[in-house]
Amino acid sequence: MTLSTILTRIDTDLDNALDRLMELLRIPSISTDPAYKADCARAADWLVEDLKSIGFDAASRPTPGHPMVVAHGGEGGTHVLFYGHYDVQPVDPLNLWNRDPFDPAIEETDKGKVIRARGASDDKGQLMTFIEACRAYVAETGKLPCKITIFLEGEEESGSPSLVPFMEANAKDLTADVALICDTDLFDANTPAITTMLRGLLGEELVITGPSKDLHSGSYGGPAINPIRVLSNIIANLHDDTGRITVPDFYDGVPELSDELRSQWEALGFDDKAFLADVGLSTPAGEAGKTVLEQIWARPTAEVNGITGGYTGDGFKTVLPSVAKAKISFRLVGTQDPLKIRDNFRQRVRDQLPPDCSVEFHDHGAGPASVMATTNPAFAAARAALTDEWPNPAAFTGSGGSIPVAGYFKTILDMDSMLIGFAMEDDSIHSPNEKYDLRSFHKGIRSWARILDALSN
Amino acid sequence: MTLSTILTRIDTDLDNALDRLMELLRIPSISTDPAYKADCARAADWLVEDLKSIGFDAASRPTPGHPMVVAHGGEGGTHVLFYGHYDVQPVDPLNLWNRDPFDPAIEETDKGKVIRARGASDDKGQLMTFIEACRAYVAETGKLPCKITIFLEGEEESGSPSLVPFMEANAKDLTADVALICDTDLFDANTPAITTMLRGLLGEELVITGPSKDLHSGSYGGPAINPIRVLSNIIANLHDDTGRITVPDFYDGVPELSDELRSQWEALGFDDKAFLADVGLSTPAGEAGKTVLEQIWARPTAEVNGITGGYTGDGFKTVLPSVAKAKISFRLVGTQDPLKIRDNFRQRVRDQLPPDCSVEFHDHGAGPASVMATTNPAFAAARAALTDEWPNPAAFTGSGGSIPVAGYFKTILDMDSMLIGFAMEDDSIHSPNEKYDLRSFHKGIRSWARILDALSN
Repeated sequence: MTLSTILTRIDTDLDNALDRLMELLRIPSISTDPAYKADCARAADWLVEDLKSIGFDAASRPTPGHPMVVAHGGEGGTHVLFYGHYDVQPVDPLNLWNRDPFDPAIEETDKGKVIRARGASDDKGQLMTFIEACRAYVAETGKLPCKITIFLEGEEESGSPSLVPFMEANAKDLTADVALICDTDLFDANTPAITTMLRGLLGEELVITGPSKDLHSGSYGGPAINPIRVLSNIIANLHDDTGRITVPDFYDGVPELSDELRSQWEALGFDDKAFLADVGLSTPAGEAGKTVLEQIWARPTAEVNGITGGYTGDGFKTVLPSVAKAKISFRLVGTQDPLKIRDNFRQRVRDQLPPDCSVEFHDHGAGPASVMATTNPAFAAARAALTDEWPNPAAFTGSGGSIPVAGYFKTILDMDSMLIGFAMEDDSIHSPNEKYDLRSFHKGIRSWARILDALSN
Repeated sequence: MTLSTILTRIDTDLDNALDRLMELLRIPSISTDPAYKADCARAADWLVEDLKSIGFDAASRPTPGHPMVVAHGGEGGTHVLFYGHYDVQPVDPLNLWNRDPFDPAIEETDKGKVIRARGASDDKGQLMTFIEACRAYVAETGKLPCKITIFLEGEEESGSPSLVPFMEANAKDLTADVALICDTDLFDANTPAITTMLRGLLGEELVITGPSKDLHSGSYGGPAINPIRVLSNIIANLHDDTGRITVPDFYDGVPELSDELRSQWEALGFDDKAFLADVGLSTPAGEAGKTVLEQIWARPTAEVNGITGGYTGDGFKTVLPSVAKAKISFRLVGTQDPLKIRDNFRQRVRDQLPPDCSVEFHDHGAGPASVMATTNPAFAAARAALTDEWPNPAAFTGSGGSIPVAGYFKTILDMDSMLIGFAMEDDSIHSPNEKYDLRSFHKGIRSWARILDALSN
């Protein structure tokens, strides 16, 4: 039995695989809206039945919210835990959709055929790529290629309230050699990616108080300290002239990019200009001497996400406010310690306060970066398998944002995660007219077949 | 006929003067609420009749809003224009009043007797001090002490929409040698003041745009410029380390305080500590080497009155916003040119913009400072007269805020104004339980009698 027969079966069975995906897409499993609670349960049940039909020992497991689907099957090789989510985003504003979001269809577009429906890309289409690869294996060989645990969540689009408690309560049932997460993008249409570096996040809110009440700026401006000016100074001092962050010891634990990753990333030919032009910009800001990709994937940053103080309505009021506030987030990499950075940041703010000013801090989370141990041979195997399927070699990439489930797999289950997905940036996930390229679906199934083949040995 | 007989008459007639004030206070002339339109007209008519009763040629003059009262009388001496306003602030929240705001009464307090009613201080009590002084003159001498024009507005508490057009249309009828404005405070309970320096005001709103839309700070933070950070830098750079404003040529036209005024102000014994402690502060901020009084009365300042950008609601969103905004006001002194400063400020902001950022400015007014020509002998005469009446010598003072009518008297009628008032800071004008000290009323009438006596020669 060779991989090529399995790939051939995937090609010839594609229409049936699409029919199955369409069935799942017809279930409006909007997790955030209680009106769709029964539909979420129905989507979980549909998946349980489908997994049972290909030999998994599958069950819908209750939580205080929507159920989890947990399935076990196969033996030998690398034990993988596959994670996806069957819930979808709400569909409003409905009038911006060109069709019923839960009446999926294949549509022809300038860029080829797409599957149009809510959840087509995020995440039903993506999770079915893995199940279809399993199905092809079972159909051709009578069994799964290796030991596989499947873990499908129904609350990803509503904050995953049950995820951590469920993982903690079922750690033994979920732990494997490596996790596979299918909820990310291709690097570009021809280049697959395994995300191996996820930045951490520290969220801080500052509330600076000067005078005990709002004052008239004509009567008090000058002698009375203005908290907006104090806050502006603190923000202005957060970076030095080279774009580096001035919090003491901030760069402890920030690794230099390895030559290996640097050359992989250079080979990606990332188009800085197009990336910036897309949002109306032309000149990279940020840390001097670092490429755009390096800044987003491998460097820590500090951003002000919100600021407010004084009178912000129409017209003008000559108020000298008592209070000014800002929300500031730090993205963290390597082994940067979010709690130490929080302490140092807060101390640095306090050190800059002029007389008569006080500051309150509100904590909005502090999570470290996840850096996968790519020395785990599963990473090299998956990378080679993806490279075989796609026009360009696969790359180990970073992610600017945070993907909490990968962090939980590490901290709760002590597993590295391979984040491999086939979505495109233009899939309009969370927006009207969501789609998944037929090519993503087809080559996604083939990609998983190749990866599972590589991990079966 | 000596001044002392007139002062004696004022003392003996005080109860009758109070009765007249009470009558006026019973008219609920709330100018901003259309429900009280007839009451405003009634207050104007009451004043016309009262002025006629003491020999003025008085009339209620229509405007598109509430009427103006204009009265002429007397001859010789210095021709004065007296300004006050007969309209009052709304009274809500009514439940915080200890009595009906339009049922005035004399109340005993820890600090002495007060007249309690809406408008008692602002401005019916104050304007009646002048009319009662005129009445005492007429009663004792059969005529007014000098040429007097009286100009009473009924829209001061609702933005004075008719004031400028009326002044322009009736310039000849209103012009005098000097204006007297009775709508300000004593410096303190024992120290009268003539406000001779009113700061100007330049209001500017900045809207800074970076990316063309709000971005995810994880995906774009660093390479994409953040307009909140740009704005914070601009605000941080608005002052240097000594608290001076860095707009080019900003201090052109800022006079040094004269030795004469400096020693007058030092003699006032202004309590910096108490002034700041009242609003929860202990350390004077602002321009190095300048006293608190000098900063507020005689130095230009720049304050941020409002700032907003990004996510400002509850919780946290990792947005990198497209836009950040601030409202900034400059208080101007001497001959500072607001239009030149506006140009220089805007250019300085543009000079600090990084690539890909743009700025829009919104104009919120630009008025120069008013500095009275205290060489006009009326000023020295009034100061001496006030000094005779009160325990402490009168001072020429400044005002941190702006009093637009004084500016209009200068620009439209080419008259300097003497702002002389007897209100106390604790009069609760614009608030529940407004009061006017009986002492303010009584010594206010006596003060005007002395001033008119001085100006009659």
